[in-house]
Amino acid sequence: MSAIRHALSIKREDDFAQWYQAVIAAADMAEESGVRGCMVIKPWGFGIWERMQRLLDDRIKAAGIQNAYFPLFIPLANFEREAEHVDGFAKEMAVVTHHRLIADGNGKLIPDPEAKLEEPLVVRPTSETIIGDAMSRWVQSWRDLPLKINQWANVVRWEMRTRMFLRTSEFLWQEGHTAHATQDEARAETLRALEMYRAFAEEDAALPVIAGEKPENERFPGARETWSIEAMMQDGKALQAGTSHYLGTNFAQAANIRYQDREGQQALCHTVSWGMSTRMVGGLIMTHGDDDGMRVPPALAPQQVVILPMLREKPEDGALLAYCEEVRAGLAGQSVLGEPLRVLLDTRPGKAASKRWDWVRKGAPIVIEVGSRDMENGVVSLLRRDELWDAETGKPRFQNPSRDVAVQTLSSILADMQTAMFTQAQERRDANITQDITDLGALAEFFGEDQRYPGWVEVQWSRPTGEGLKAVEEQLKALRLTLRNVPVHALPADGTCIFTGQPAIERIYVARAY
Amino acid sequence: MSAIRHALSIKREDDFAQWYQAVIAAADMAEESGVRGCMVIKPWGFGIWERMQRLLDDRIKAAGIQNAYFPLFIPLANFEREAEHVDGFAKEMAVVTHHRLIADGNGKLIPDPEAKLEEPLVVRPTSETIIGDAMSRWVQSWRDLPLKINQWANVVRWEMRTRMFLRTSEFLWQEGHTAHATQDEARAETLRALEMYRAFAEEDAALPVIAGEKPENERFPGARETWSIEAMMQDGKALQAGTSHYLGTNFAQAANIRYQDREGQQALCHTVSWGMSTRMVGGLIMTHGDDDGMRVPPALAPQQVVILPMLREKPEDGALLAYCEEVRAGLAGQSVLGEPLRVLLDTRPGKAASKRWDWVRKGAPIVIEVGSRDMENGVVSLLRRDELWDAETGKPRFQNPSRDVAVQTLSSILADMQTAMFTQAQERRDANITQDITDLGALAEFFGEDQRYPGWVEVQWSRPTGEGLKAVEEQLKALRLTLRNVPVHALPADGTCIFTGQPAIERIYVARAY
Repeated sequence: MSAIRHALSIKREDDFAQWYQAVIAAADMAEESGVRGCMVIKPWGFGIWERMQRLLDDRIKAAGIQNAYFPLFIPLANFEREAEHVDGFAKEMAVVTHHRLIADGNGKLIPDPEAKLEEPLVVRPTSETIIGDAMSRWVQSWRDLPLKINQWANVVRWEMRTRMFLRTSEFLWQEGHTAHATQDEARAETLRALEMYRAFAEEDAALPVIAGEKPENERFPGARETWSIEAMMQDGKALQAGTSHYLGTNFAQAANIRYQDREGQQALCHTVSWGMSTRMVGGLIMTHGDDDGMRVPPALAPQQVVILPMLREKPEDGALLAYCEEVRAGLAGQSVLGEPLRVLLDTRPGKAASKRWDWVRKGAPIVIEVGSRDMENGVVSLLRRDELWDAETGKPRFQNPSRDVAVQTLSSILADMQTAMFTQAQERRDANITQDITDLGALAEFFGEDQRYPGWVEVQWSRPTGEGLKAVEEQLKALRLTLRNVPVHALPADGTCIFTGQPAIERIYVARAY
Repeated sequence: MSAIRHALSIKREDDFAQWYQAVIAAADMAEESGVRGCMVIKPWGFGIWERMQRLLDDRIKAAGIQNAYFPLFIPLANFEREAEHVDGFAKEMAVVTHHRLIADGNGKLIPDPEAKLEEPLVVRPTSETIIGDAMSRWVQSWRDLPLKINQWANVVRWEMRTRMFLRTSEFLWQEGHTAHATQDEARAETLRALEMYRAFAEEDAALPVIAGEKPENERFPGARETWSIEAMMQDGKALQAGTSHYLGTNFAQAANIRYQDREGQQALCHTVSWGMSTRMVGGLIMTHGDDDGMRVPPALAPQQVVILPMLREKPEDGALLAYCEEVRAGLAGQSVLGEPLRVLLDTRPGKAASKRWDWVRKGAPIVIEVGSRDMENGVVSLLRRDELWDAETGKPRFQNPSRDVAVQTLSSILADMQTAMFTQAQERRDANITQDITDLGALAEFFGEDQRYPGWVEVQWSRPTGEGLKAVEEQLKALRLTLRNVPVHALPADGTCIFTGQPAIERIYVARAY
């Protein structure tokens, strides 16, 4: 077997942004579409998203939330009702103005001036306003509450600078929307969704995250509170990987979501929304990818084990295929991480060594190569994506268990790998969090001009609001930094605010961010 | 238990169109959204669609087709390349012309004139052109073929007259797109997809269908051949429930999808597309619904068994709940039609009898009511949705098996019900197909002015084309009839063409249609 290292053309430490694009290309996950700001999600990338959908949807349904579907188009009138909300989105909305095309004098298609909409429609950037409208029809009495709905959908925000998965004009997501009788219940749901995202990120995606509350200036437009999970990428930047919003009665007021309480009085609902998107795939790449390509945690891998017979277009191929098929059949009936093991016997034309590197770049957790010598010896050649190289020899680290042992142990190897990938990411994250910076000078020095690996700083602050917060934001902006969140599980404050010098009341993360 | 018949306010035979709307409302499946031509799919309706997605997606993946995702927006230039295609869709397309809103002088939001797109974008009505664009990048050599892709997506066709599920401006669907080296392979894929739809419709949706080729005048814009499955609704009309198109090299030419063949020559691909949509939910309603509401075939029911404890807010409720929970747990581990049985213990507030009728209207296959007397006797009260009424007494036809027998037999009752619903629909369909009409006068008389239950007529024809076919179309239009398809499995022709009087060459269905 070839020991040639088919690494990417660019390493993480040389140019992280270029490396990110190189991984997406090498793993064949996505590509630019030619439509401004929109990507094509290719089968391997979409397969990972489908796995995310399945596992998150199971968690959503287990929480008693029901899926439904609402219109893509939102009338302007819906938007105008919540002022902060419209301010937040008006600058980046795709607007539909016509419903027909005709050919102009030169045979070129143009929007038909006779088919202009009386009221333009916007393509949903998020669905609070349209779902709020439905909720106002569905909620009459306290008996109708809580009302818990989720939607899987595409949304559009006209972004000026786009990057595949991380920021695209169209993206895929789920958006949960719930209505409650009381503030307490609504805030409890906000935190339940946050905890669901934390569990999904850490258990399914092997992404360690910090769950916490965003500061006032980073709230969702129209929200009373915004909570997030934040993940550290390998360049030390933060990625907001899921958000949950307590909307107070703002959207209920705008959409007129009222209920008759037990005493017969009319009252406004308290509403909540929460979302997670294809951005998570970008976070997966920047957390788990390495200089050989993508690495997909077993729970999210469309294929967990890929078997490559080293076919030679000779009569012996039949026996080799039968040998491989026994491995496949032995694995296919097994369960891994609570689901059926996903195994592929890859018999497409092409050399096994070349296909091996295709699967390594895609990040399939386990590749099994089987040649005629393996078959004679009753073994297989097994490569773990998270232990790819032998440090001493510099060659791929093949293991050669007997076929039976391979079939018996692979499901536990996959389960171990899921844990190992999480632990590796968590240790790196924790090693790159600094807690002993107490003045702005030291903060500036810590981050310096370096784009890579500076990590996050947990600082103490006095939670200024309004103009005070704006001043903090400006100070940080000059250092290309942002406030991330106030962690749910933080030590109490015991010092002074790094920004104001006043007694600190809590801790907050500061980082460069996507 | 109440014997009051909580039927719909309108019966099928009184006004089928009104009945259809009444079922959707009574089963709480969907509603108008307030956005022109767009519907809200409510949890029960969406749950049925999710079941359809899951079962059809399994069939798609089993055929070696991979899911991917392509942009919502299509540049006009893509559309202009295939003349017939653009002619077919230009009249009904939503056009995005701006990417920002601003407030006008009166504070009203308008599209920002400064943010007008240089080239308008259309919201996809179907994705041949955008996926063809990607295929032209992905296909280089014969080794890249066949290329088989599927997308689950929303599409928009600006319909002037809409009806929930059957015809809405936005709808959900899957669209398969494949590219092949030869016409033979492409036509084989066209027919494979058609057969997949037939099997899905008949086995999963319990909808008997006729698979066949659409006549030339009913082809998809730009296609060389269009094949369909046609289902008969209870009013005797036909519903096209899925289509598969052989596109020849038309779209490959337009998008430049070429490959180098084994001899090193450049050649155009032959492409295929096939789609099935939320329209299928409408077909399900009009096939299986009755005067008590919806009936969902077990394979598609979000809940197959609903258990209703008759709680009295008394201390005994605890024992009753425990009794019901044992039924639930006993069923939850079982398998029905190859999947885990879906069972709900419904403990929401409200009277059991009232909740029973909710579930009957929704069409849950089995409702189990348990009162304290049932518990004392060790039995349950079981209602099959497809055998709801006792013809003699006019009361609901409850069965009272022991709890153990119920747990042991329910999965086979559900499997029987799946078959019984298909057989019932098939017998009705077959009884309403007429084959002995040989002249246009008799055809006109057969259909008459009656909107209901006239059924379909299988006629013999000479397959005229061009002007000849147009004349046939006009003759039929005067009778409010359309040509449906030439069935795959038909007897050979042995008579004369009902339209032209020439020797017939095949048989074709004529019907009123949705």
